[in-house]
Amino acid sequence: MKTTENEKQKEETVEGEKTKEAPRTRRPKENVVFVGSKPPMSYVLAIITNLSASDSKEITLKARGRAISTAVDAAEITRRRFMKDLKVSQIALGTEEMPPREGESRGRMTSTVEITLARE
Amino acid sequence: MKTTENEKQKEETVEGEKTKEAPRTRRPKENVVFVGSKPPMSYVLAIITNLSASDSKEITLKARGRAISTAVDAAEITRRRFMKDLKVSQIALGTEEMPPREGESRGRMTSTVEITLARE
Repeated sequence: MKTTENEKQKEETVEGEKTKEAPRTRRPKENVVFVGSKPPMSYVLAIITNLSASDSKEITLKARGRAISTAVDAAEITRRRFMKDLKVSQIALGTEEMPPREGESRGRMTSTVEITLARE
Repeated sequence: MKTTENEKQKEETVEGEKTKEAPRTRRPKENVVFVGSKPPMSYVLAIITNLSASDSKEITLKARGRAISTAVDAAEITRRRFMKDLKVSQIALGTEEMPPREGESRGRMTSTVEITLARE
């Protein structure tokens, strides 16, 4: 849960730098949980909280690299144990280039996944 | 590549024990690469070899747990670097119960993924 909020905040800050005068607009339809290196249950909680708090019937899990397995775990645990009316409505694979680490000349390619869960 | 062959062999042995007299039948339509703990490039090679050797236009990557990230990596590398006419035609998530380890009373649930790649 905390991760989600932190990442959202980060995004908003970056946005704020570009268009400082622009009014803050929440994207009400975009429910996103960023999956990182915490245990899957943290993200299960984030998904359930997010779906309960909003009127949205959809939520998207986004993950990169090693966290992809955790995203699948979180989706499966939520679906099978907690919200049995939740279905996987879409899965998209992708590749992103990460900035090179120190001493490396080229960036590394990382796989990404976006899993969308929807209530029936 | 070796993993794939090992796993296939294992499967065949188990089958052989059950029906010893039965003729060996290859499943010609089922092109499957089992993704494990090797580097992604091993599986990229397996995919390319498999698609080149057979007349099939489809191949399915199967992975469990931590190997899910590797399966996504292999799919993405194959698609973006080697076979640009390959598309992700289907992705299925699932959960399997693994037998309990020593000292544990219950089996653990593991997430699974099946990624099907198809040539256009």
